Amino acid sequence: MNRLDWNALDSLGQRAALARPAQSRAESLRSGVEQIVARVRADGDAALRELSARYDRCALDAIEVTAQELHDAESRLDPELKAAIDEAAARIEAFHRAAAPQPVAVDTASGVRVERMLRPIQRVGLYVPAGSAPLPSTALMLGVPARIAGCAEVVLCSPARADGRCDDAVLYTAKVTGVHRVFKLGGAQAIAAMAYGTESVPKCDKLFGPGNAWVTEAKLQVSADPEGAAIDMPAGPSEVLVIADEDANPAFVAADLLSQAEHGPDSQVILLSPSAALLDAVAGEVARQCAELPRADIAEQALSQSRLIAVASLAQAVEVSNRYAPEHLIVQVADPRALLSGIESAGSVFLGPWTPESVGDYCSGSNHVLPTYGYARSYSGVSVASFQKQITVQELSADGLRAIGPCTATLAAAEQLEAHRRAVVLRLAALEDAA
Amino acid sequence: MNRLDWNALDSLGQRAALARPAQSRAESLRSGVEQIVARVRADGDAALRELSARYDRCALDAIEVTAQELHDAESRLDPELKAAIDEAAARIEAFHRAAAPQPVAVDTASGVRVERMLRPIQRVGLYVPAGSAPLPSTALMLGVPARIAGCAEVVLCSPARADGRCDDAVLYTAKVTGVHRVFKLGGAQAIAAMAYGTESVPKCDKLFGPGNAWVTEAKLQVSADPEGAAIDMPAGPSEVLVIADEDANPAFVAADLLSQAEHGPDSQVILLSPSAALLDAVAGEVARQCAELPRADIAEQALSQSRLIAVASLAQAVEVSNRYAPEHLIVQVADPRALLSGIESAGSVFLGPWTPESVGDYCSGSNHVLPTYGYARSYSGVSVASFQKQITVQELSADGLRAIGPCTATLAAAEQLEAHRRAVVLRLAALEDAA
Repeated sequence: MNRLDWNALDSLGQRAALARPAQSRAESLRSGVEQIVARVRADGDAALRELSARYDRCALDAIEVTAQELHDAESRLDPELKAAIDEAAARIEAFHRAAAPQPVAVDTASGVRVERMLRPIQRVGLYVPAGSAPLPSTALMLGVPARIAGCAEVVLCSPARADGRCDDAVLYTAKVTGVHRVFKLGGAQAIAAMAYGTESVPKCDKLFGPGNAWVTEAKLQVSADPEGAAIDMPAGPSEVLVIADEDANPAFVAADLLSQAEHGPDSQVILLSPSAALLDAVAGEVARQCAELPRADIAEQALSQSRLIAVASLAQAVEVSNRYAPEHLIVQVADPRALLSGIESAGSVFLGPWTPESVGDYCSGSNHVLPTYGYARSYSGVSVASFQKQITVQELSADGLRAIGPCTATLAAAEQLEAHRRAVVLRLAALEDAA
Repeated sequence: MNRLDWNALDSLGQRAALARPAQSRAESLRSGVEQIVARVRADGDAALRELSARYDRCALDAIEVTAQELHDAESRLDPELKAAIDEAAARIEAFHRAAAPQPVAVDTASGVRVERMLRPIQRVGLYVPAGSAPLPSTALMLGVPARIAGCAEVVLCSPARADGRCDDAVLYTAKVTGVHRVFKLGGAQAIAAMAYGTESVPKCDKLFGPGNAWVTEAKLQVSADPEGAAIDMPAGPSEVLVIADEDANPAFVAADLLSQAEHGPDSQVILLSPSAALLDAVAGEVARQCAELPRADIAEQALSQSRLIAVASLAQAVEVSNRYAPEHLIVQVADPRALLSGIESAGSVFLGPWTPESVGDYCSGSNHVLPTYGYARSYSGVSVASFQKQITVQELSADGLRAIGPCTATLAAAEQLEAHRRAVVLRLAALEDAA
C-alpha cells in the first residue's frame, strides 16, 4: 500500500490519491457484448444454449431449473449453511420491511386530495454471479426486497458449472426468498435473455445485481434501449475506505481492508488516519495477515493500488471521505457517532470496533448491493424502493377545482399552453352553469 | 384519431395499437451532441459563448444571471402570475414534504443497530427549457424538491432569448425556490456544462429536467460516463391515456386529450372506453375544440398517431392501460376509485371529472416530471428522494457481534471469501481473550 500525507500533496496529488483504477470500456468488450445481445434477440433459447456451451463450458438440456433440482439442492445442502441463509434472510427482511416506502395521502387544499401509492415492478430479473465462487448472499440481497415489494414475477439467472448444475446454496436461497423461476444462465447472454425475453426466459422490466465486465457492459447496453430493461445502478469494482484513530485496533483495521482487497485485483482500499503510529501498525498487520490468505495474490494486486493516507484530523478525514464517496465506509474511532453527521456520500457505513464490513455483506440486515466507483455521490444502495414504482394520484372535488383552477389557468396561460388552460376553464364554466 | 376495437385485433394488432411514435436516436444527433460535449469539456466558457451565439442566437456578456437581473425580473413580473407561482410552490411543497423519505433505525438482533440516514445530493443541475415557450412550472417541479432535500448547490440552466435575457417567470421561480445560481444556457451545451463544469458553471452530481432531442441525448451521454453526472430518468414525448365510461363528459375528455396533444407533434393520446357512444361523442368534441386552439397544427399532428379504442369493460381498460404504462392516466368513470387498486403502471393518475391533467402539471402538489414512453413500468416521477441518497449505517456492540458473527462466518466460508470470515473470527477471538 502506498503511504501518503494528504496535506503534503498539491491539488493534483490529492486528486491522484483518490483516483480509482481506470475502468476501460474497451471497444472489443462493447462490440463483443453487442454481438451476444443481438444473437440472443435473434435466436432466443438456441443462442443461449450455444453461448453457454462456449462460455460456461456446459451443455444445457433444459435452461430452467426444475422443481426437482430445487428440492435436491435443498436436501444436499449443509444444515449449518442452510440455517445461516435462513437467519440472514430473516434479518435482511426485518430491516428492509422497516425501511420500505409507505403510501401517503394529503389534502393540499380543501377538496384537493393528493396521494402516492406504491406498486411493485411487475417482472424483475436478478443476476447472481458464480465466477470465482457462487454468491448466495447476492441472491439474498436481491430476492428478499423483491419479495417484500411483491413483484409478480421474479426471475433469477446464475451460471451453471460444467456439470450443468447451479450452486446448491444459490438454489436454496432462491427458493427461500420466493424467486419464481431460476435459469442456468450467466454472462451477457443472461442479461440479454432477461432484458428481451426468449422462448424460455420471460422479458423483465428491471435487472439487478453485480457481475463481471461482460455483465456490466450488457446491463449498460440494455438500459440505454427503450425496448430493453431498466437496471439497478451502474457498477464498478468493490472498495472500502476506513477512518481510524489511535484508539483503533490495527489488526481489526487490517482485516477489514483485506476483506475488500480479496474481492478482486481491481478492488481499492483506503485508510485515513491522523495517527502515524496507527498507519504504521496497520501496514505491518496488512502484510502479516495478507500472507496467510488463500486469495493473497488477488489481495496483493488490489493493495498495489491502495493507500494509507495521513490526515490532519478526523474532520479532515471525513472531508476526504466525502470527496471519495466510498461504497463502504468503516469508522473505527473513539466516538464514531460524532462523525456521522458530517458524512455526506457513502454506500453503507460501519461504526465502531465490533462492526466489520463483512456483517453488512451477509446478515446485519442492510443491503450489500451498493454504489461503487464514486456513484455514492448520487446513487443509493438497493432497497425495497428499487423494486417499486411510486405513483402519484390526485382527485379534486368541484370545490377543489374552484380552489386551484384559477392558479392552474394563470400558469398555463403564461406557458402559452391554451389547451391546458381550457381543460380547466371549461370545467369551471360547467360548474357555474350548474350553480 | 384512429378508431380501433381492442377485441377485434390480433396480438400484433394490439401491439401496434399501443406502439409509441418511434424515437430515432439518429447517428447525426448522437455525433452532433458528442461534438458539443467535447467542445464544452475542452474550452469551457468560451465554448458556451460560441455555442449560445450559434444555437440560441444570443451574444452573452456574462453567462450567469446576476442578482440585479433576478431583482429586475421579479419587479417586472405580472402580480397575478407571481401570486400563482407562489401558490403553486406552496402546494408542491406541502405534498413533497409529506412524501419525503424518513430516517429509519431498527435493531435486527440484540446489539445490532441498523439505520438508514438521508443525505442531499450535494450539487444538482436543473434544466428548464424555453423552446416554444418558457416553462416556469418545470422550475417549480425541480426547485421545490431540491430545496426540501437540502442540496448544497442548486444550479439552474435555461436558454436566453435573442435579447440575452432569461424569462422573468423562470427567474422569479428560481429565486422563490432557493436556486443558488442561474445560467443563461440551453441545449446540449447546458447539459455538458453542468455535467463537467466550466470556469463559470459548477460541476453537478445529478441533472434533472425535460428538454428537446439534443438535451435528451446529451443527458444520456453524460450519464453513461462515470466522469459525467447521473440523470433523473430517460425521457420521451409526453402522453396521456384516458379511461372513460358512458357517464363521462365528452367535452371534458376531449379537452384533456387535447391538452396533451398540444405539447408536441410527437405526443400521443389514447382513449379507452367500453361505450361506443362516448367514443363517438369525444371524437366530435376533439375535432370541434382542436380547431379553436392556437397550437391546432401541433395538436393535429399528435392526434394523427393517437387512438380511440373500444374495450369490452373497464377491467379490460385497466389491463390495456397497464400494458401501455402511460405517463398520465385520467380515469373519468362513475366510480374511479374502484379502478385504482388494479392500476400497476402509470406516472401520475387523475381521478374523476374535476381533475384535469393540467392541475397536476401546475399546482395540485404532485410532480409533473414523470416517466414517459413506457418507462412507467420501472421508473417513478421526480420526488424529494430523487435529490437524496439513502445511506445505511450499522453499529454492533460486542454482544451484537457475538450474536451474528457466526452466521457471517458461515456464509463467508461458503463463498470462499476467507478474509471476510477472518475479519469476524479475529474479533470474536479478541472478545474471548478479553473474557
